[in-house]
Amino acid sequence: MAAPVNLLQKLALINEHWSPKVVAEMNDYQFKLAKLKGEFVWHSHDHTDEVFMVLKGELTIELRDGAVALSEGDLYVVPKGVEHRPVAQQECQVLLVEPRGVVNTGEAGGDLQAPNDVWI
Amino acid sequence: MAAPVNLLQKLALINEHWSPKVVAEMNDYQFKLAKLKGEFVWHSHDHTDEVFMVLKGELTIELRDGAVALSEGDLYVVPKGVEHRPVAQQECQVLLVEPRGVVNTGEAGGDLQAPNDVWI
Repeated sequence: MAAPVNLLQKLALINEHWSPKVVAEMNDYQFKLAKLKGEFVWHSHDHTDEVFMVLKGELTIELRDGAVALSEGDLYVVPKGVEHRPVAQQECQVLLVEPRGVVNTGEAGGDLQAPNDVWI
Repeated sequence: MAAPVNLLQKLALINEHWSPKVVAEMNDYQFKLAKLKGEFVWHSHDHTDEVFMVLKGELTIELRDGAVALSEGDLYVVPKGVEHRPVAQQECQVLLVEPRGVVNTGEAGGDLQAPNDVWI
């Protein structure tokens, strides 16, 4: 029998920005926690939608045709293939849900690409 | 461009217990909100894991070999095929994540079976 995951306790273990950590798996999907601050890179995920849920702070998800402002308790689904750029003026804490194997920078790569499938 | 989903605003629209409402879809998965109070039925989902995230209150998930106590901010994955019975002494508010088409009572049916795929 597995133990429950306390999201706040897990978030307290994260010291870096833009580096999602896996906390649970359901079927072939992963639940990941991340702390975000600053501007990420424009990218997309060609094979999957991606869920952002804001647990603390505020997050803007820039899209090519506008921007979505998210506050605590907001959930947003970035559709498959849609270019997006997360931006957080202050540190923001989020839960991500996506299939196992999704890389944070999608097809874009670059300095902000984080190691994948790292659990805390 | 879709709007974000505010979980608290959506929860305020729910007036009944044990009747999950869909608020978002990611690929073929659904995010559902529910208010729970009292004892549910023993059941399992033979083809999928199921995620419970407690947004408010406390929830016990009874399993045949024990019980898991969840508080606000806790996430728990009930594995595929594992019999479970959610119990909430006081009203509890949860986010569920599971594939489209999953019925709340699994194979058990009965009076607490809720209409499936109802959006709010």
